[in-house]
Amino acid sequence: MNVEAKLQPPYARVRAANRADYDRATIHAILDAAIVAHVGFVDDGRPMVIPMIFGLIGDTIYLHGAKATRIIKRVGETAPLCLTVTHVDGLVVARSAFHHSINYRSAVIHGTARHVTDSQEHERALVAVTEHLLPGRWDEARPMTEKESRATGVLALDIEAASAKIRQGPPVDDEADHDLPIWGGVLPVATAIAAPVHDGRMADGGVPPASLLKARRKFGA
Amino acid sequence: MNVEAKLQPPYARVRAANRADYDRATIHAILDAAIVAHVGFVDDGRPMVIPMIFGLIGDTIYLHGAKATRIIKRVGETAPLCLTVTHVDGLVVARSAFHHSINYRSAVIHGTARHVTDSQEHERALVAVTEHLLPGRWDEARPMTEKESRATGVLALDIEAASAKIRQGPPVDDEADHDLPIWGGVLPVATAIAAPVHDGRMADGGVPPASLLKARRKFGA
Repeated sequence: MNVEAKLQPPYARVRAANRADYDRATIHAILDAAIVAHVGFVDDGRPMVIPMIFGLIGDTIYLHGAKATRIIKRVGETAPLCLTVTHVDGLVVARSAFHHSINYRSAVIHGTARHVTDSQEHERALVAVTEHLLPGRWDEARPMTEKESRATGVLALDIEAASAKIRQGPPVDDEADHDLPIWGGVLPVATAIAAPVHDGRMADGGVPPASLLKARRKFGA
Repeated sequence: MNVEAKLQPPYARVRAANRADYDRATIHAILDAAIVAHVGFVDDGRPMVIPMIFGLIGDTIYLHGAKATRIIKRVGETAPLCLTVTHVDGLVVARSAFHHSINYRSAVIHGTARHVTDSQEHERALVAVTEHLLPGRWDEARPMTEKESRATGVLALDIEAASAKIRQGPPVDDEADHDLPIWGGVLPVATAIAAPVHDGRMADGGVPPASLLKARRKFGA
């Protein structure tokens, strides 16, 4: 796995070390590359943040399972939600303690969540969550039964506001500090995905399906 | 970088696929291994989640910088905070769409945040945040000036409640699904850290300092 090759950033081409980017395509790309999101809601007046997997269709994010349905106790009610995704791309090592930072891409989504009650939207959402992590897996896997589908609560978060923030590039040191004999640069960070590990119970000899290769390419360095 | 070697989990020894763990040492280990936390607070009645770096001293978590001080507008006020850290360890690929999951370790911290006004606690906090990411860096870097220190707001989050959740191991499929010719297992995921990239402005030839090696061992696979 050649992580270094992918991680050598074209620093020379980066003009501004800090920039905020609110472009829709940028935000979707940040969401698409994330395995988990951190979902924040207000629980009895207090903030609560839980990690969740998700799926994305257009401008709606879908969350599923027991945790999702606990966010809104009753069908028919809605709740304000904040969903944040962060990719750490590097530790920024400056000459001064003050200018240390990290390189990252993050997206912060605000919206209102609702229970999904329409059966067609419910199925599309389950497909989207599965396919987000493992593209093509829905058709490889044993189909969901009626009972399993009914047991899986789904929330839809309709995106009302979204923003992205990206920091890339070398440290921004004080000019005078460049004369000091202190190292400055970046320690690159990435998500790595290793070879699939089968569970030893394969009837067909255990050949990994195409969805695993797609996931490895999508999430791994 | 041999990610696979570290990621082959001893699946045979994992009895329960899902377990919650509330042990203090486990929670601290999860926090210690994290580069960023997702910090949730209530902003004008709505949830807000932002990624932040942090430091840990005993049962207090420190946050610093402009984002931290915007969480609580006025010195002297406090605010309930939720800080969550998640490590994704694998995509759990089941035979049925229903039993797909992820392997992860997460910690959810609840507490009350306050501005740090004591100058000694303020300095200890800045050291802790720097050293959390780069152990030993505080003494390698150019010392923080009085002006830089004053410009860096610090919040302390005194931990009031904490919990961890860990899922490891292979998929838990329905027994009947093992007869299907469908692959089941885990796609291991890890954080990888590549070789340091200097910024080309080194007065001393660019030899990476010890803190980078320590960070690479601490966070990388």
